[in-house]
Amino acid sequence: MGPQNKHKIINDPVYGFITVRHALCFDLMDHRYVQRLRRISQLGLSHYVYPGAVHNRFHHAVGAMHLMQEALDVLREKGIAISREEAEAACAAILLHDIGHGPFSHALEHSIVRGVHHEDISTLMMSRMNEAFGGRLDLAIRIFNDDYPRRFLHALVSSQLDMDRLDYLGRDSFYSGVAEGKVGSDRIIKMLNVAEDQIVVEEKGIYSIEKFIVARRLMYWQVYLHRTVLSAEYMLMLVLRRAKDLASHGVPLFSTPALSIFLHEALDRAHFLADPDILERFSELDDSDILCAMKAWQHHEDRVLSFLSRSIVERRLFRIELRDAPFAEEEVDRCRRMLTETWGMSVEETSKLVHTGQISNQAYAGSGIHILYKTGEIRDFAQASDHFTPELLQRKVTKHFLCYPKN
Amino acid sequence: MGPQNKHKIINDPVYGFITVRHALCFDLMDHRYVQRLRRISQLGLSHYVYPGAVHNRFHHAVGAMHLMQEALDVLREKGIAISREEAEAACAAILLHDIGHGPFSHALEHSIVRGVHHEDISTLMMSRMNEAFGGRLDLAIRIFNDDYPRRFLHALVSSQLDMDRLDYLGRDSFYSGVAEGKVGSDRIIKMLNVAEDQIVVEEKGIYSIEKFIVARRLMYWQVYLHRTVLSAEYMLMLVLRRAKDLASHGVPLFSTPALSIFLHEALDRAHFLADPDILERFSELDDSDILCAMKAWQHHEDRVLSFLSRSIVERRLFRIELRDAPFAEEEVDRCRRMLTETWGMSVEETSKLVHTGQISNQAYAGSGIHILYKTGEIRDFAQASDHFTPELLQRKVTKHFLCYPKN
Amino acid sequence: MGPQNKHKIINDPVYGFITVRHALCFDLMDHRYVQRLRRISQLGLSHYVYPGAVHNRFHHAVGAMHLMQEALDVLREKGIAISREEAEAACAAILLHDIGHGPFSHALEHSIVRGVHHEDISTLMMSRMNEAFGGRLDLAIRIFNDDYPRRFLHALVSSQLDMDRLDYLGRDSFYSGVAEGKVGSDRIIKMLNVAEDQIVVEEKGIYSIEKFIVARRLMYWQVYLHRTVLSAEYMLMLVLRRAKDLASHGVPLFSTPALSIFLHEALDRAHFLADPDILERFSELDDSDILCAMKAWQHHEDRVLSFLSRSIVERRLFRIELRDAPFAEEEVDRCRRMLTETWGMSVEETSKLVHTGQISNQAYAGSGIHILYKTGEIRDFAQASDHFTPELLQRKVTKHFLCYPKN
Amino acid sequence: MGPQNKHKIINDPVYGFITVRHALCFDLMDHRYVQRLRRISQLGLSHYVYPGAVHNRFHHAVGAMHLMQEALDVLREKGIAISREEAEAACAAILLHDIGHGPFSHALEHSIVRGVHHEDISTLMMSRMNEAFGGRLDLAIRIFNDDYPRRFLHALVSSQLDMDRLDYLGRDSFYSGVAEGKVGSDRIIKMLNVAEDQIVVEEKGIYSIEKFIVARRLMYWQVYLHRTVLSAEYMLMLVLRRAKDLASHGVPLFSTPALSIFLHEALDRAHFLADPDILERFSELDDSDILCAMKAWQHHEDRVLSFLSRSIVERRLFRIELRDAPFAEEEVDRCRRMLTETWGMSVEETSKLVHTGQISNQAYAGSGIHILYKTGEIRDFAQASDHFTPELLQRKVTKHFLCYPKN
Repeated sequence: MGPQNKHKIINDPVYGFITVRHALCFDLMDHRYVQRLRRISQLGLSHYVYPGAVHNRFHHAVGAMHLMQEALDVLREKGIAISREEAEAACAAILLHDIGHGPFSHALEHSIVRGVHHEDISTLMMSRMNEAFGGRLDLAIRIFNDDYPRRFLHALVSSQLDMDRLDYLGRDSFYSGVAEGKVGSDRIIKMLNVAEDQIVVEEKGIYSIEKFIVARRLMYWQVYLHRTVLSAEYMLMLVLRRAKDLASHGVPLFSTPALSIFLHEALDRAHFLADPDILERFSELDDSDILCAMKAWQHHEDRVLSFLSRSIVERRLFRIELRDAPFAEEEVDRCRRMLTETWGMSVEETSKLVHTGQISNQAYAGSGIHILYKTGEIRDFAQASDHFTPELLQRKVTKHFLCYPKN
Repeated sequence: MGPQNKHKIINDPVYGFITVRHALCFDLMDHRYVQRLRRISQLGLSHYVYPGAVHNRFHHAVGAMHLMQEALDVLREKGIAISREEAEAACAAILLHDIGHGPFSHALEHSIVRGVHHEDISTLMMSRMNEAFGGRLDLAIRIFNDDYPRRFLHALVSSQLDMDRLDYLGRDSFYSGVAEGKVGSDRIIKMLNVAEDQIVVEEKGIYSIEKFIVARRLMYWQVYLHRTVLSAEYMLMLVLRRAKDLASHGVPLFSTPALSIFLHEALDRAHFLADPDILERFSELDDSDILCAMKAWQHHEDRVLSFLSRSIVERRLFRIELRDAPFAEEEVDRCRRMLTETWGMSVEETSKLVHTGQISNQAYAGSGIHILYKTGEIRDFAQASDHFTPELLQRKVTKHFLCYPKN
Repeated sequence: MGPQNKHKIINDPVYGFITVRHALCFDLMDHRYVQRLRRISQLGLSHYVYPGAVHNRFHHAVGAMHLMQEALDVLREKGIAISREEAEAACAAILLHDIGHGPFSHALEHSIVRGVHHEDISTLMMSRMNEAFGGRLDLAIRIFNDDYPRRFLHALVSSQLDMDRLDYLGRDSFYSGVAEGKVGSDRIIKMLNVAEDQIVVEEKGIYSIEKFIVARRLMYWQVYLHRTVLSAEYMLMLVLRRAKDLASHGVPLFSTPALSIFLHEALDRAHFLADPDILERFSELDDSDILCAMKAWQHHEDRVLSFLSRSIVERRLFRIELRDAPFAEEEVDRCRRMLTETWGMSVEETSKLVHTGQISNQAYAGSGIHILYKTGEIRDFAQASDHFTPELLQRKVTKHFLCYPKN
Repeated sequence: MGPQNKHKIINDPVYGFITVRHALCFDLMDHRYVQRLRRISQLGLSHYVYPGAVHNRFHHAVGAMHLMQEALDVLREKGIAISREEAEAACAAILLHDIGHGPFSHALEHSIVRGVHHEDISTLMMSRMNEAFGGRLDLAIRIFNDDYPRRFLHALVSSQLDMDRLDYLGRDSFYSGVAEGKVGSDRIIKMLNVAEDQIVVEEKGIYSIEKFIVARRLMYWQVYLHRTVLSAEYMLMLVLRRAKDLASHGVPLFSTPALSIFLHEALDRAHFLADPDILERFSELDDSDILCAMKAWQHHEDRVLSFLSRSIVERRLFRIELRDAPFAEEEVDRCRRMLTETWGMSVEETSKLVHTGQISNQAYAGSGIHILYKTGEIRDFAQASDHFTPELLQRKVTKHFLCYPKN
């Protein structure tokens, strides 16, 4: 009789079942840095538009690890030698790739901890975990940093067609209910191969890549850059900036213990490197801190802070105008004057509530997906498709927006 | 040219698209009481076992409203007269049916606001909303309270086969990835009819009901009463009880503004009725308050509080033993002594960490699902099935458990 | 660079992709005996009720082979040693398990080749293929015939919980659109293990088995024994019997070359064994022969033959009455007299058009699914479930029917 | 109590349930012309590559009717007045749109009944049915022929974005298991509107149309023009041409009664118009006649006929070479000479087995899908997309092929 399953099988609505194959991954999943990802939503406030999109970064990390396992299996079946250590390390690397994400994924980066990218924090966290794991993460970190000779392993972690992307596109499509954004990751993975030490897609997978490009584009415009989602995200950034601003002027305001230091001190990359405690504090921060703070701030006497907080909590989202051309200074001014007239706000206040900016998307970064022909030739997808032209694929679509309170 | 869609279509991973047909429902969804449900997870900490099960009560409420619309359509097609007002009210009633749920759905009920059921709070909230809506909820409330002559409408809101149940079973199965728990709600709804003012299932739907019973049972044992889920839920109850206990003894401990009053005061149903402000405070409470509190309590000097908090936050769940017979006092004592010996805890401390209790489930409450035969006869499902016997269906399966820290 | 895929991956709507792992299976699939299964529908005329149910036995055979591969993987992961030869043979055995099925799966058995079961023909065909394959099928045939010491391999091919059943239940549910009949084969397979040389299901899979039993029951009553499906199947049997009867009396009637010998000669098992050519003729017979014959027979002068043929071809199905008690002789007579009166048919003619019989179904054959407890104990499912009683599971539900032309 | 369902609900694996709303459609479905479509496979021999793709034209017709019902609902909700008669007629028109298809959908058109398109036969059949139905099809026929003033109804039956296309792309993708080809018909339909009497897609549906174009393209190259599918289809055409040729020279060969006249006489459109009996004969012809004939022809003494027949029946498909440039005469000759040398075939024989041709596909016919902007402006999709250029969309991709026996 074989031993019974030891909870290493995880039910997943997207893939059915996920088997955690490597003991290292199993141990990593138990670490509190990874557990924290359960409290970081993958798509921030997108669930304000797509109520199902409430999945978190933990689930995504596990999903990406599953796809990594699948991809490695496919490559091995095609004769690519991949050692057990390499497989384990690649799986660990993808499991940890997002570990440095802060609350609501990106909200903090543009507001209270400026200049510190989640990638930096990921790197710091990984080294700290590596110490705790007695060096078991060495190879994973090398692969993550593209510092390992067999570079195709890094490409599976991070590239135009990495397992991160395949999982998040599929998962975001699934949870948001935007079924059209579904990416056929299983077929794409079956078409992968390695040539000249890089990940390539076999010729007959070319239509799947076309579909992937279009599905990705659809997800961008329909979900990630959806106007209402944008509005909510900018409001989140504005409220955090306002809070930080008030805090820096000594205005008292509620904060959870985890949030406090980030609100009251100006921290940058150097601080994270110099003081290990800051990372520790960061590792206790998640969506719930921001939510609790905003709920409390609804009652704050600063009108900008309370107005923004209440608007987000009660989902009274700002109007957002999107267009091809930038907004002129006068248009922004007109908008602010309206606020002054309607609500008697000061110029300073309205400047914190009216926001312009731009977003852009590119169907394909120009290069990075390699097609392998039966002849052995390798061409970039931009050259390989008879449906898309390189110019078109690389065209960057930019939209300008103006965001302000309704009425 | 017809008018373009006005955002009244909601993407839903479970049903594809949900159309919000009634303006009243649309307006209700914008109310902060309903928006709050976005921050209340449907399945509490079940996502510790099923990482996909992170859906919230808002989504469930909208889903149940969708099924109500479907059911009313089916009944109308079969010639049951249902006025526009009745349809609107039934949809509003199901949309609001869960509005009184507190954080993590049930955690508070058994810990800090004892004796106040979420149904009580739902009723209070509905009347308050009705005032704000100028009486537009009158009929919805009558239907909700089974105070409207056409009682089949209430049965669609609350009965053995209501739209609440059909949605949550389906949705919980979907999000948890326990595909076997899937209930064929679309077919069941197509088989509904009204006879003698009650909801009946047409004869040929009998196998669908059998399947519903078994799927429901499977969801109970595999998800709702999953041992690890139980463990997490009991730990949550223990930590809140401990915090309340400490607060009542004047021990200072972190709290968010929304949680504070419930932690520091002994509130019961009478308080809610007497002081409108308490309901208002409750309406600001959600999962994030509990999460932030526990994260802060990890560092509290009370060992029981900090141990429980850290264990939950880091997902170091207690061991749980399940069996048919109750646990004897000695078994519990032995378990506590072990804690004393291992960690040097006091008797008082160990008594807060070791917990016994029982859970039970019944496949079918004994009656309530009516089968309509072609002859016009109506029989209860327990009598109608040739596969199940009434005794079996009504048999209550009870399990006893003992829950305590690992190691 | 690894070699590119060699068409060994098959798209399957049910499982996504099927990989044919064993070269032997790949070769077997090319054999004309196996290719013939493409022209044998899995569910006969069920598509008259469920228009999607048009899948054929070839697809089922490939699907069952896929599940076998999955099951063997699971067992190996649990430490059960299975050699490459055994795996290949088990896959080959399941791929060929239905090879002897005639047109419309069962139509012939009860009409023109009485006394020859499809299992007999399967055995004959396998030995003939084994000759052609130079003995490569030896082990597969031993496993198929339960003539190999490691009996769990046979159980995967043929038992209460074999891969045949798991595939056909899932596939029939999928294609018919009877979503409620869906069986969670992936979870059941993950729960399989081997103990005491038999296939067992691990304890925590017990609810999945309950669900399997109920889904199977639902498929029986809703699809396999659906009254309209039954009617069509009995009409098919009647028309073939009539044709055979006429042929035996020397009445000329159209036949395709493949059908001819079976229509004009009384063949039994002994003939198949004695004359190899008969098997060869049988191997050219499929659904299309019956369809073409009936289309031609619509214009035959024999009223019974033409009436039955036209009724089937144009889908004017006979009425069928189902009930618990048998039909009395008088009821049948009354029915026949009505035909005589309405259409002026002779007694002999009406006797060929009015048909009685009975069908029955049992939720569970009484024993055969073994549950393995964590303690190592093995119990039969009938004893293991706390939801079903053995009596109930073994209860045979029998229905009697009377089938006759409408109007 | 409302009346119970009267079998007007059809299970469909693609859409779940299909309700037949109009009595006329229900009656039409019972007509033997429509029933015949059950015996005509939707995708011919594609199941030789995609074993699941065995669905028939009947199912497709019913599915397209379902989408028509959905589309009319959406338009009515947007305020487009559509009378009950118009709705019924539009549904009837789409239900019958493919009624003139012959066996294997297109096999006959290019072989034995040259010059008679299935559209011609559809028109003839519809008028004959209209007679039988006492003129109840008048309006449906006008809509079908674009002879009704409200032209958007015709566009739903036949245009770049008609319900025919939406159903077959979705259904073919579903049954073939080529999940990437899935078209989001439900979302596209929700985005439909009517402006200036034409069907338009609302602005925010533009990404869905992009996805539709790409999915359609993928289905073309991956399924409809799959090299192995092409090979099988050309072989089918070759065998029928050979049989017709032999028949015209008086060589005796097996035929079913339904096929006989088409094999032995040179029939064109004029014959169909002149002799009503020919249509009647045609209406008895389906896939089974071709299958039975080929099975018999395997044993014919004409080597070309028997070789082709056996190759198709046993799925020994010809090799097909695809490339951008046409094949030169010498290449074809070389190929034929090889056959002569290997098998000793005559020049005449090899000329019947080696075949060249070309296939082409265009992502978008250049115009026909209209996008409606919020401003009221209407633009063709080719102009509206910022992702595709008109030139690219209209580019016709042509491939040349050479098809010949293996070895």
